[in-house]
Amino acid sequence: MNKYVESITDMDKDFAQWYTDVVKKSEMIDYSSVRGCMILRPYGYAIWELIQKHLDKKFKETGHENVYMPLLIPQSLLQKEKDHVEGFAPEVAWVTYGGDEKLTEKLCIRPTSETLFCEHYANIIQSHRDLPKLYNQWCSVVRWEKTTRPFLRSLEFLWQEGHTAHATFEEAEAETLKMLDVYADFCEKILAIPVIKGKKTENEKFAGALSTYTIESLMHDGRALQSGTSHNFGDGFAKAFDIKYTDSQNQLKYVYQTSWGISTRLIGAIIMVHGDNNGLVLPPNIAPIQIVIIPIAMKKSGVKEKAIELEQKLSKSKIRVKLDLSDKTPGWKFSEYEMKGVPLRIEIGPRDLENNCVTMVRRDTNEKITEQLDNLNIEETLEAIQKNLFDKALAHRNKNTFEAKTLDELEKILSTTPGFIKTNWCGNTECELKVKEKTGASARCIAFEKADEDGKCLCCGEKSKHKIYWAKAY
Amino acid sequence: MNKYVESITDMDKDFAQWYTDVVKKSEMIDYSSVRGCMILRPYGYAIWELIQKHLDKKFKETGHENVYMPLLIPQSLLQKEKDHVEGFAPEVAWVTYGGDEKLTEKLCIRPTSETLFCEHYANIIQSHRDLPKLYNQWCSVVRWEKTTRPFLRSLEFLWQEGHTAHATFEEAEAETLKMLDVYADFCEKILAIPVIKGKKTENEKFAGALSTYTIESLMHDGRALQSGTSHNFGDGFAKAFDIKYTDSQNQLKYVYQTSWGISTRLIGAIIMVHGDNNGLVLPPNIAPIQIVIIPIAMKKSGVKEKAIELEQKLSKSKIRVKLDLSDKTPGWKFSEYEMKGVPLRIEIGPRDLENNCVTMVRRDTNEKITEQLDNLNIEETLEAIQKNLFDKALAHRNKNTFEAKTLDELEKILSTTPGFIKTNWCGNTECELKVKEKTGASARCIAFEKADEDGKCLCCGEKSKHKIYWAKAY
Repeated sequence: MNKYVESITDMDKDFAQWYTDVVKKSEMIDYSSVRGCMILRPYGYAIWELIQKHLDKKFKETGHENVYMPLLIPQSLLQKEKDHVEGFAPEVAWVTYGGDEKLTEKLCIRPTSETLFCEHYANIIQSHRDLPKLYNQWCSVVRWEKTTRPFLRSLEFLWQEGHTAHATFEEAEAETLKMLDVYADFCEKILAIPVIKGKKTENEKFAGALSTYTIESLMHDGRALQSGTSHNFGDGFAKAFDIKYTDSQNQLKYVYQTSWGISTRLIGAIIMVHGDNNGLVLPPNIAPIQIVIIPIAMKKSGVKEKAIELEQKLSKSKIRVKLDLSDKTPGWKFSEYEMKGVPLRIEIGPRDLENNCVTMVRRDTNEKITEQLDNLNIEETLEAIQKNLFDKALAHRNKNTFEAKTLDELEKILSTTPGFIKTNWCGNTECELKVKEKTGASARCIAFEKADEDGKCLCCGEKSKHKIYWAKAY
Repeated sequence: MNKYVESITDMDKDFAQWYTDVVKKSEMIDYSSVRGCMILRPYGYAIWELIQKHLDKKFKETGHENVYMPLLIPQSLLQKEKDHVEGFAPEVAWVTYGGDEKLTEKLCIRPTSETLFCEHYANIIQSHRDLPKLYNQWCSVVRWEKTTRPFLRSLEFLWQEGHTAHATFEEAEAETLKMLDVYADFCEKILAIPVIKGKKTENEKFAGALSTYTIESLMHDGRALQSGTSHNFGDGFAKAFDIKYTDSQNQLKYVYQTSWGISTRLIGAIIMVHGDNNGLVLPPNIAPIQIVIIPIAMKKSGVKEKAIELEQKLSKSKIRVKLDLSDKTPGWKFSEYEMKGVPLRIEIGPRDLENNCVTMVRRDTNEKITEQLDNLNIEETLEAIQKNLFDKALAHRNKNTFEAKTLDELEKILSTTPGFIKTNWCGNTECELKVKEKTGASARCIAFEKADEDGKCLCCGEKSKHKIYWAKAY
C-alpha cells in the first residue's frame, strides 16, 4: 500500500467523496481561488484534447465549420428572446466596469451563445444560397451556480456549441437528430458509455427551444447524467432576431435553427461510469496514456535499454505510451498509474528478459498476461479493454433499469435500487412535477419508442401518451 | 471587374482602410455589438487553427503540456505582484455581479494569467523533482483598450500563454530564449514573415518581468508589429507568491519563471506583410485553402468530372484543396479567391481538356503556368510561392531598414521612408522617451549584436551601450 491508495474513499461508502478524491489524486484538476472555478491540469486537459480531436473531426466530416464569437453579450442582446433570457439571466456573471470606467450597458459573460450567433446570422444570411450555415465553436462559458462540483457543475466550464441555420423546419429537425447521433456514437464508441436517446419534456427543455433531445447515461451510483443535448429552435429565434432569407421564388422567409453541445461534464461521466476503488479507469480510446511501461530492477543489465526500445517501437505504431524511468519504486508506480486509469501496464524485469517476455496487466480486470516481447498483442488487448468497459457499463445500466406502473412502485424502486425507471406518462407537466416533488427523480427523457396502447400514466392514471425515463440525476 | 475588387481601397492611398476592407471582404471577421470584440468567421478561424496546430506541435515537442486556468481572477490575487497589477489593472474588465448577487470581491476577466499560474505553482511545486514545470494554455483574454482594430488591438483576443517554472535563473533564461526561437522560426518558415529578434527596453518590457524578448516584423506600410514576446521573470513572481522548492541539498529555494505568448495579432501581420490590392495573399503553409479548382464552361462534357477527379487526387496527397462548383461566373470566382489569398488557382476548361492540360495561376506573381494534368508540379509550386513570399517580405524589410546617427537623421528618415531605423543608444530611459516624444517612433528592441565601440547615443551623444531598432508601430 502507498499514499495514493491509502487515502482514497471507498466508492460504495461515500461516492461523492470517492469522486472528489479521484479527480484530485489522479491530478486531473486543482482548485483555484475563485469559488467553483477549477484548474484543468495536464492530465485532465489531455482527456479534453482527445474529446475535442475526435468530435471536431466528426463535426468537420458532417460539414461544420469552426468560428469564434465574443465572450461578452450586451444585456439588450441577451434579452431579445423572451424564454431564453428568463432561463439564463439569473445565472450570468455581469461585467459593469472596464478599467475605472462604469459601462453604460452591462455585459454578461456568455452562458451560451445563441444570441451572438443569431445577431451574426441576421447580418450574413440573405439568400437561400447562404443556407445552411453549419457553425460550431469551442470555448468556455460561465454560469453562476450556487453549488459546484468539478466537471459536473462549475462556474466556468469548457464546451462546444454548434449553431446552425436552415431553410426549412425539416432540415433543422434532421440536423438536431443527426448531431444527437454523433454524440451518442461518440459516447458509446470512444468513451465506452452506453446512452439512452430521447426527448426532454416541455418542463426540462432548453430555454428558447421548440424541442430538446438528450443523451442520458447512468453512473455507478445509479444516478443519471445528461451527457449531451441537441435543440431544435424552429423559427423562434429567427423571429426574435429577424433572420430572413429570400428563397428560390424570391419570397422572404425566416430561417430554422438548431444548437447542440457537450462539455467537460463528459469527463465526469467517464470517471463515474468506469472508475473503481483504485481510481480512474480510462477506456483506451480516450486515455492520454494508453500504455505505461514500468521497468523492474532498472539497474540490472539490459532492463532499461529493453524498456526504451519497446517504448520507441510502440510510439511508432501511434500508441500513446509512457515509459516511467523515475526513481520511485515499481509498487508506487503501479498504484500511481492505476489511480490515473492507464488501461494497460507493461512490466519488464530481469526475469522477463531471460525469457524474452513481458508481463502485461489490464487496468479493467487486473488480469496478468505474459507475452513474448516480439509478439505482443497490444492492439487486440486495448480493443478488448475498450469493449469490456462498454459491456460492463451496459450490464450495469441494464441491471439498474426498471419499469414501474405507479408512483408508489417508482418510489419503492428508487429507495432501494436507484437507476433508470421507465413508466407510462400522460404528458402533463402537472404529473411530471408531482413525481419530481414526491420522489426527487426528474424526467430524464421521453423515449423514442411508442407508448403502450393500453398504458396508464403512473401519476394520474389517465391514458398514457409516452414512455418516459425517470432518475435522480446530477 | 466585380463587386469584390471594385470596392477595395488602394493600399498605397489609405492603408488603414485597405486593411479594414480586406479583413471584411475576405470574410475573416465580422463585427459584433460589443465595441472592439470581433467575430472570427470560418475563414479567419481556420487560419488560427493552423497557427495552433503548428505551434502546439512545437510546444509539445519541446516538452510543454497544455492546461486550462480559470477565466476570472480575484482582485486580491491580481494585486499580489506590484508591477504587474500597475501594468494591467487600468485595462481589465470587472465582474461585480453573479446573477442578482453583488460579489463581495470583484473579479477581473484575465488580461493574462501569470497570477493564476503562480497561485497554482505555489500549490503543486514542493521538490526539485517537480521542476521544471512547462505549461501552456490556449484561451482568450480581455483588455479594455480605448481604440481597437481587428486582429491588431481588440478588447478580447485569442492567444496562447506559456508559463514555466525552473530551478535556476539560467534555466529560465534558456527557456525564454528557446521559445523566442520557436516563435521566430514559426514566423519565418510558416508565415513567411522575417523577424528581428531582440530585447525590450526597461520602459517597454512586460509588467513584472526582469527582461522581455521580442520578435518584431515590418508591415507593408513601414510600421513595425510586435509579433511575439518571451519574458524572464527571475524570482520576482516566486517571491510575491511564495513559490519555493527544496533542492537536492534539502535547501528551500525560490523558483525562476518565464512566460511567452503569441496571439491572433499574427493574422494581422500576415495580412499587412503579404496582402496586395486584390486582397489577402496567404503563404501556402498557413492557407486554409491552398489550391482552388475552378471549372470553366462547367456544362461542357467532361469538365466537371475531371475537376472532381483532380480534387480527390489532391485531397489524398494532403493538400488543402477546394473545388468550387457553384453557379457563379469563373471571373467572379477568380476575384473571390484572390481576395481570400488562395495561393494557387487551377482552371480546367474544355480547351485544357483537349490537350490534357490545366492552367495554374499563382496568387503571388499572377504568373500563368500550363501543365500536363498527369504531371502537375503542385508541391514544388506551393514551395516556390512560400519561398517567394518570404523573399519579397525580406527584401521589403531590408529596403526599409536604415541607420541613423542623430535624432535629426532619424526624424528625416521617418518622415519620408518609414521603416526600422537602427541607431546607437546610451541605454537611458530619458533619451528613449525623448526620441519617442519627438518622432513618434518607439524603441522596438535592443539588438542582440554588440554596440559599436566608438558609437554615440543618437539623443544625448554620450557613449553608446546598445544598438537599438526604432520604428512607428502598431
